[in-house]
Amino acid sequence: MITSLSNNRIKHVAALREKGRERNREGLFLAEGVRMFQEAPVGQIREIYYSESFLKTTGRRTEEESLRHEKNLEKLALCRERGIFTEQVSEEVFRKASDTCSPQGILFVMEQFTYSLDRMLLQAGGQRLFLALEDIQDPGNLGTMLRTGEGAGVSGVIMSRGCVDIYNPKTIRATMGSLFRVPFVYEEDLGAAAGKLKAHGIRVYAAHLEGERYYDQIDYPLGSAFLIGNEGKGLKRDTADLADAYVKIPMEGKLESLNAAVAAALLLYQAAGCHRKEKGK
Amino acid sequence: MITSLSNNRIKHVAALREKGRERNREGLFLAEGVRMFQEAPVGQIREIYYSESFLKTTGRRTEEESLRHEKNLEKLALCRERGIFTEQVSEEVFRKASDTCSPQGILFVMEQFTYSLDRMLLQAGGQRLFLALEDIQDPGNLGTMLRTGEGAGVSGVIMSRGCVDIYNPKTIRATMGSLFRVPFVYEEDLGAAAGKLKAHGIRVYAAHLEGERYYDQIDYPLGSAFLIGNEGKGLKRDTADLADAYVKIPMEGKLESLNAAVAAALLLYQAAGCHRKEKGK
Repeated sequence: MITSLSNNRIKHVAALREKGRERNREGLFLAEGVRMFQEAPVGQIREIYYSESFLKTTGRRTEEESLRHEKNLEKLALCRERGIFTEQVSEEVFRKASDTCSPQGILFVMEQFTYSLDRMLLQAGGQRLFLALEDIQDPGNLGTMLRTGEGAGVSGVIMSRGCVDIYNPKTIRATMGSLFRVPFVYEEDLGAAAGKLKAHGIRVYAAHLEGERYYDQIDYPLGSAFLIGNEGKGLKRDTADLADAYVKIPMEGKLESLNAAVAAALLLYQAAGCHRKEKGK
Repeated sequence: MITSLSNNRIKHVAALREKGRERNREGLFLAEGVRMFQEAPVGQIREIYYSESFLKTTGRRTEEESLRHEKNLEKLALCRERGIFTEQVSEEVFRKASDTCSPQGILFVMEQFTYSLDRMLLQAGGQRLFLALEDIQDPGNLGTMLRTGEGAGVSGVIMSRGCVDIYNPKTIRATMGSLFRVPFVYEEDLGAAAGKLKAHGIRVYAAHLEGERYYDQIDYPLGSAFLIGNEGKGLKRDTADLADAYVKIPMEGKLESLNAAVAAALLLYQAAGCHRKEKGK
């Protein structure tokens, strides 16, 4: 059991939690919580740390919680069998290592995902739906977009290098597990990525206040991508120019803009709705 | 100029920032930032605190920022003329009094809003669109819902007592000024409020995983309200039972639910879209 905050492994965990550079240098990231642990692919887990309270079988309030807890204990045992490093830490150490105010007693180091735009395009099914994000700054927004993207059935999320780190603990939390299931990629040149989508017959729409048409008056083809810009500044002119069309979300009142994750949700679900109708679901 | 952290006015500001009970006891709240100040109704401002950096006319990066700054200085002068208490504070004091990591040099105490459901119903225009929230816990979610609500043109937002405090600084920030424009009310009994909406001919829909129909397959009447439940638990059975119909948002992948603010956005905008078509916009 680790009881010291100056333990090297705990220091490493803290570095992975706080420093994007450290995460990217090592190709690792930190995830935590009972739901995330349940959904994490075992093959990518490198180290697991848990507190005494995680092992306790009492205190789960609902049946769902008890069931999840049981599954988590089984998963922990499975990970040990597979030779993954697991270690109990004291409650105090756990509180310090955790990123949340009410830690759930389990955190783990994982290998980063390695997707590519080419593979996303290759593996996209009948509905090729993409989200392309420029310089999204809020970790919660980015995480929510991944989560909503999974719900709408995106083939992948493409991010400019200026976007916040997807392995930021706040982003991971906001994905609610979608991080493990939705393909994503950072692209040095978002414009070039948009060009590649177009070359593959995907129609690229830019969310833009100067859009000539409302977002809900368009019949989105089965290959559709949406460009969403930075929270404060919107899309850069050069990026927006690459789109096949601008689309506008109508706004009442005196609002200057919608939250970026809300805008992404409206567009993705509108396109997914068109696709659903097309497929006769 | 206030230079001491133990100044009584600054202590009062800190209490309003941190304690919901204090805010409600006094009927006051704290807002901050240049955009919020620009949009705040003067009649409700009680005290204004600004730092030296706020007065500086240099350092604004864009024309928009310069223009906003100029307007803010004018507004500050106007508030002084009206006899509102204004006081400069040292940068150090300002940093401590502010809720944000990068404070914008202006914060102000305001009187709380006093709306009622009856007045909302009376003042609702042709489109009577309501959002009714049960036990929403995340301040950012609540703020985003107000912001999205303004965009969709809601007549008002109704909240159960179990919802997070709308005057929480994080909520206020997430509203991006919609707090000043969208009517809202806390109701002791959300069920009774839903009943009142129904009595006024408004159709009440519950966002629910057991919905029999997809949210985008419904022709929402001009009087529509949406019940949205707690982030983790969804709607209580008793509350959901009050709805005229359950509506479901389709989800691909292995997602258990969407973010509550995203779900609210999809429903409100879907209804607003129906209304727009009806009005032939």
